[in-house]
Amino acid sequence: MIDNIRVIAFDADDTLWVNEPYFRDTEEQFASLLEDFLPRHSIVAELYQTEIANLPLYGYGIKGFMLSMIETVLRITQGKADAEIINRVITLGQEMLNKPIELLDGVEDVLKALHGKYRLVVATKGDLLDQERKLKNSGLDHYFHHIEIMSDKQEKDYEKLLKHLDCPAEAFLMLGNSLKSDVLPVLNIGGHAVHIPYHTTWVHEHIDHTIEHPNFYELKRLAEVLPQLIV
Amino acid sequence: MIDNIRVIAFDADDTLWVNEPYFRDTEEQFASLLEDFLPRHSIVAELYQTEIANLPLYGYGIKGFMLSMIETVLRITQGKADAEIINRVITLGQEMLNKPIELLDGVEDVLKALHGKYRLVVATKGDLLDQERKLKNSGLDHYFHHIEIMSDKQEKDYEKLLKHLDCPAEAFLMLGNSLKSDVLPVLNIGGHAVHIPYHTTWVHEHIDHTIEHPNFYELKRLAEVLPQLIV
Repeated sequence: MIDNIRVIAFDADDTLWVNEPYFRDTEEQFASLLEDFLPRHSIVAELYQTEIANLPLYGYGIKGFMLSMIETVLRITQGKADAEIINRVITLGQEMLNKPIELLDGVEDVLKALHGKYRLVVATKGDLLDQERKLKNSGLDHYFHHIEIMSDKQEKDYEKLLKHLDCPAEAFLMLGNSLKSDVLPVLNIGGHAVHIPYHTTWVHEHIDHTIEHPNFYELKRLAEVLPQLIV
Repeated sequence: MIDNIRVIAFDADDTLWVNEPYFRDTEEQFASLLEDFLPRHSIVAELYQTEIANLPLYGYGIKGFMLSMIETVLRITQGKADAEIINRVITLGQEMLNKPIELLDGVEDVLKALHGKYRLVVATKGDLLDQERKLKNSGLDHYFHHIEIMSDKQEKDYEKLLKHLDCPAEAFLMLGNSLKSDVLPVLNIGGHAVHIPYHTTWVHEHIDHTIEHPNFYELKRLAEVLPQLIV
């Protein structure tokens, strides 16, 4: 039983709704545009390298991903890219921004059960406007007090979040699909964390060790959190 | 005298620090890149049209501006753009993201005087990471409780903000350089607003009527707010 919780924060992408498969799918289409220049796996590797190099400047989200795709086109083609390829990349990105919302299993039941008993917030990286759009289209927005957009999810970012929420760490519970972003930093500052793995995880979010901690819970599905909480 | 204020929110760009002149300067350089294709004023008009069309999808901020510049290149050149032009546009945007912070007159003195007496927040449109970087580089971050990134600054966005801050509208004071974004919506929901004009305003933020309202204050410089508040 997780006691004395006041705020429950939900990661959004791949915790509330499908996201990562859309990135992987766009990556595949991106690689197809450039297969005259490089083999697929090299294109994907080049794109990843560009994304990581640009993270400190662009942060997370689809707009930064679009800019990294464009930069990758210019580098791979060494200036020989047809303008039509850049046009296609912009369309690919805009299609991502317009994707419909596909809720994950059991999400709405869990929010319904917790609503009114805890302060529920969404805590996510990415672009504010895009995440607001997704929350609105999800039909889940009335369950949440507000969205917290975080520029990163490291310990200092969670400390800032807790200060902002006026919530002590021991009264904070984070739920998400990334051990690196949703679990480890929260445990390290004294909060509680629930990990619900998703079948696809961006390589940047991978960690390769197991976690043992009194405030840590590993669940298979979001609904399994309910027996752990007073509802 | 503005009484019973609990939260004072500061717009960031062109209220705390210089911003709009950097956009205008980048626009000039952008127009130079394309002057073989169109006259300058037409290029600027095309870019503005692209930005406005993309606002619902991209929101505010430099990354969206970069994507709009790239799209404008492709349209103006009808696919005949040299890849080098796109490269230059990406560099122009990255230079904007790395601009040093130039504080506006009297900002630090005002914050010093208000700090500890009110909850001070930054309330701004734009990209979270970029605004956080600017706040950090400004050396002003310790004066503020936190940054609020708003996807837009309409009445509904301020209502969301007040809910988030747990602050009644009559205890909220907004300071900023845009009548359209920082003043009118705040007055309309019952808050207080101070307008401090800046010499350059993006055309999208223009309104052409005067405001008369008991909760409205028009000042020439930020420091003039101090005699209006209990400090």
